[in-house]
Amino acid sequence: MKILETINSPCDLKKLKKEELPNLAQEIREEIIDVISKNGGHLSSNLGVVDLTLAMHYVFNSPEDKIIWDVGHQAYAHKIITGRREKFKTIRTHNGLSGFPKIEESCHDVFGVGHASTSISAALGFATARDIKNEGYKVIAVIGDGSMTGGLAFEGLQNAGHLKKDMIVILNDNEMFISQKVGAVAGYFAKLLTAGMARKFEEKVVKTISRFHGFGASFRKLIKRAKVMLFPGMLFEEMGFTYVGPVQGHNIDNLTVILENIKNMKGPVLLHVMTKKGKGYFPAEQEPTKFHGVGKFDPQTGTSEKKQTVTYTKVFSDTLVKLAQEDKKIVAITAAMPEGTGLDKFAKKFPERYFDVGIAEGHSVTFAAAQAADGLKPVCAIYSTFMQRAIDNIIHDVALQKLPVTFVLDRAGFVGEDGSTHHGAFDLSYLNYIPNLVIMSPSDENELQHMLKTALSSRKPCVIRYPRGEGLGVNLDKSLHIIQIGKGVILKEGQDICLLAIGNQVSTCLQAAEILETKNIKAMVVNMRFLKPLDTKLIKEIFLKVKKFITVEENSLIGGFGEAIKSFFCNSGAIVKCIGIPDKFIEQGNLKVLRKKYGFTAENIAQEALQMS
Amino acid sequence: MKILETINSPCDLKKLKKEELPNLAQEIREEIIDVISKNGGHLSSNLGVVDLTLAMHYVFNSPEDKIIWDVGHQAYAHKIITGRREKFKTIRTHNGLSGFPKIEESCHDVFGVGHASTSISAALGFATARDIKNEGYKVIAVIGDGSMTGGLAFEGLQNAGHLKKDMIVILNDNEMFISQKVGAVAGYFAKLLTAGMARKFEEKVVKTISRFHGFGASFRKLIKRAKVMLFPGMLFEEMGFTYVGPVQGHNIDNLTVILENIKNMKGPVLLHVMTKKGKGYFPAEQEPTKFHGVGKFDPQTGTSEKKQTVTYTKVFSDTLVKLAQEDKKIVAITAAMPEGTGLDKFAKKFPERYFDVGIAEGHSVTFAAAQAADGLKPVCAIYSTFMQRAIDNIIHDVALQKLPVTFVLDRAGFVGEDGSTHHGAFDLSYLNYIPNLVIMSPSDENELQHMLKTALSSRKPCVIRYPRGEGLGVNLDKSLHIIQIGKGVILKEGQDICLLAIGNQVSTCLQAAEILETKNIKAMVVNMRFLKPLDTKLIKEIFLKVKKFITVEENSLIGGFGEAIKSFFCNSGAIVKCIGIPDKFIEQGNLKVLRKKYGFTAENIAQEALQMS
Repeated sequence: MKILETINSPCDLKKLKKEELPNLAQEIREEIIDVISKNGGHLSSNLGVVDLTLAMHYVFNSPEDKIIWDVGHQAYAHKIITGRREKFKTIRTHNGLSGFPKIEESCHDVFGVGHASTSISAALGFATARDIKNEGYKVIAVIGDGSMTGGLAFEGLQNAGHLKKDMIVILNDNEMFISQKVGAVAGYFAKLLTAGMARKFEEKVVKTISRFHGFGASFRKLIKRAKVMLFPGMLFEEMGFTYVGPVQGHNIDNLTVILENIKNMKGPVLLHVMTKKGKGYFPAEQEPTKFHGVGKFDPQTGTSEKKQTVTYTKVFSDTLVKLAQEDKKIVAITAAMPEGTGLDKFAKKFPERYFDVGIAEGHSVTFAAAQAADGLKPVCAIYSTFMQRAIDNIIHDVALQKLPVTFVLDRAGFVGEDGSTHHGAFDLSYLNYIPNLVIMSPSDENELQHMLKTALSSRKPCVIRYPRGEGLGVNLDKSLHIIQIGKGVILKEGQDICLLAIGNQVSTCLQAAEILETKNIKAMVVNMRFLKPLDTKLIKEIFLKVKKFITVEENSLIGGFGEAIKSFFCNSGAIVKCIGIPDKFIEQGNLKVLRKKYGFTAENIAQEALQMS
Repeated sequence: MKILETINSPCDLKKLKKEELPNLAQEIREEIIDVISKNGGHLSSNLGVVDLTLAMHYVFNSPEDKIIWDVGHQAYAHKIITGRREKFKTIRTHNGLSGFPKIEESCHDVFGVGHASTSISAALGFATARDIKNEGYKVIAVIGDGSMTGGLAFEGLQNAGHLKKDMIVILNDNEMFISQKVGAVAGYFAKLLTAGMARKFEEKVVKTISRFHGFGASFRKLIKRAKVMLFPGMLFEEMGFTYVGPVQGHNIDNLTVILENIKNMKGPVLLHVMTKKGKGYFPAEQEPTKFHGVGKFDPQTGTSEKKQTVTYTKVFSDTLVKLAQEDKKIVAITAAMPEGTGLDKFAKKFPERYFDVGIAEGHSVTFAAAQAADGLKPVCAIYSTFMQRAIDNIIHDVALQKLPVTFVLDRAGFVGEDGSTHHGAFDLSYLNYIPNLVIMSPSDENELQHMLKTALSSRKPCVIRYPRGEGLGVNLDKSLHIIQIGKGVILKEGQDICLLAIGNQVSTCLQAAEILETKNIKAMVVNMRFLKPLDTKLIKEIFLKVKKFITVEENSLIGGFGEAIKSFFCNSGAIVKCIGIPDKFIEQGNLKVLRKKYGFTAENIAQEALQMS
């Protein structure tokens, strides 16, 4: 029998002998590889922290002690050993376990997550709440070095260093960003330090020299500096943390000793743990980025089916390179997502014009604004959900100054299995009220090409939003042209009803019109192309002939395209029905499942049209 | 004749002898005190950087060299000596000079600003653009220690340290936040350091020890650490900057020498300058916070007229203290605005439940979310315009998890003289599409009390937004009650037209109804109270009797209250007219001037109603 089968809660884990933990870790890795090879998910990051997860749950008492995962795409082992072993095979499926910690899923998930860099702020929130309530639990944040680049993490660190609350931040350093490649010696010191020796030494020295009045303070400072000279992590020490580390993150026995040692330390502690992404699975160790987020793959070989279809991302990627060859003012910016956004190709071709700023969306936008102010044409490519981080920068730095930055929002609309934290459900709403912006969305991947050309020729702040995944498979025009800003286009004439769509829903409306044709209803289909400026001239003209409208957008029904149309038609006598994402957070699930459930199908649109006839 | 009268551009400044600069500084201070005592504005911060500003413009060549001010509320001296001396008396008035740098105002204002912490990102944007274009200009960001607490500044620092571009960040440290109170000796070393001596010393040592193969790298590290041990600023050195300082910021001669020295240094340089807020004006030196942002005052004594009216801020402040006396779970959070938000009173009364997190809006929200997850009732008080920084935190950390955080948005609607960067024009729009939120706005200061009680009793994420400045002067109920969530109230019956208002515009509508009364038009007036959930039941009932509606809100016409009502009425046959802030960035000006110009007067509302009759 496997050890794993006996683990239904962290209590069961604590019954094991320490020597059994490595075997359990091995079993958990096998389970993760097995399930993720079928469901897809985050592999490298999860394999990297299995040992750390076991050590933490061995030493701390979840859920009384609060373990807070940053991003949360590394919490699979945590889920497996906190009562969700049997459900683990449903991870990332519709109605299954979430791929991220989620408050409603388990009392062990004390703070839900999905976006990066929130864990230190959250941990400090718990630590202050604990002290106000006079409770005694421990608070532990686990944050990757990537997430540490986010300004939010810095704000949290700084506030924690100031408040001096007892809390532990575990920096899970898999050498993505800020690693300083310190050697083994430091690891040895770290273990000593955690045993309290170095602290005691320091206190003793301070006591001795404090007799020399007047010099005490500067001597203390000197001692402190001498200490950080010997140990790395000065940055954290400067911010008020006690730095411990770096320690090797795959020796569970060692980790438990260290965690026991730092468990009762006073004030904020930063434990620097070095882990290997993909640990224990050869293909992922070799190519951690490829296995960061994966679809189905063959667990034996690590190979996955190559899809032959053309994604929106790829078309953006190719078009940008094409345009950048002709125009040297084009630069490209990503917030730590070169592959996901498709900027990797640009990066290879034009390294000097490519900027990966780390997980720092706010900075990326302000940075782009200044480049535009100095005459460049920056393209800032960020997922719709992550751009929520930079709205003030768009308002205050770009739109207010009318600077020609092109924002490319991939993953707009449903994203599928990543679920509620990741859907791009709000971008039309969080952008439409911003003055001076041009907001567009292509109906297919061919139009995306032309829109990118349009944006980069416009000298205006522009947003292009498009969905995750495959395009329609249409032919791509060889030469690019500029689309007139604010002009929609009638794709199909009809007088019974008008289907107004934006983005990927244009094609669904065309299909709906075909279904309606079979019921003898002539539906007009319009590709609106632009949410802002809205083509009110076109709509007015249509209204002379057609009085019923259905709007379709893969965005919230509030504040987006549909509401803009309804608002426009309010006093006219037109009948308008809106199809969009309802006013709630949408669950995870396959794109097809979600689109069907929420009415983004030709059948449903046709049905709605029939009901209006 | 005053020297100042000869200064029409930085070129004129360069014609002066160095010895004349202190006198010029004195004249500029007098000019600033004189004008701000009449117009109101930021006093302490501007007086603090007069000397630094002169030294910078003496050494660098603006506008070729790019000087970027963080926040920009310290750029008055910069404005005065860059051709805006004569216009300076119009500062912060309608159609006058902006209180902040503004691209369209002068070629010397290379990047507009108003919100904190953008300058390093912007400077790096310019530095990269310069290098791509093969130009040679200098880039200098000037950032206060307060702004340095923002995560955006950290993101900028980190990216700059990584890219190693030539740029200078001047940390203007007036001991607001992160000062380490290092002594005069360090200032002396700093001057030496800038002259290249320490750098040369370091190079020499590294050269010497590099003969010892194998040990070279770690020795170099040791040398570097020895250096930062002697000099402060390790935090910046760790992030890839060359740290210079701290230097005294009021000796212009000294400053020019240092700036000349660092001007041609390679890579990013951080110059740490110590200044005194309010320098040169005794009342402001004594009470820098009082003189941070001021209204009119007597320049001789520093005293200003005490207004006797009760502001919304004061009512919030008092009510929160009252509620917190009864409920120990209430905690309060500000992002460096204790006075402005009125939390200073709470801070004095309940220091252990009060958190000033620095200029870190994102962190403040996530921090509050975790406190709420652990059972507290956090009140997060932030100006409407600054909450634009934390929208993702509201979505991802609060609303998605349905955590009961109460957001208090002061300065919603027009803010007056601070202008386009500061108007709270968007909050209803940037909040309405977020699921699970309750959004309310009080019609007067008495209702504010009850709304605060309501929010804190609701166990839901709630937002209360209210305007800057005085309430209506209504009586304040002694005992607080809970308002039913999502219920509006008819304040005045009428059948000819219905005025639907939210927030401070309810009282304007009541006045408009009185005007209409004299024209024999019976207007109904409704205090909607809640944007979300919208009281559609009430509106439906009204629609049985009244068919014409005017909505009034001090928020953008897009995505807010008016559009929600229009959208609701779209297919009904109701006639709806919306009054709100148009789709553009609104200029600065006195509140009365702006409200009149944009139609927020009883006369205009009555006029619109008459036109619909």
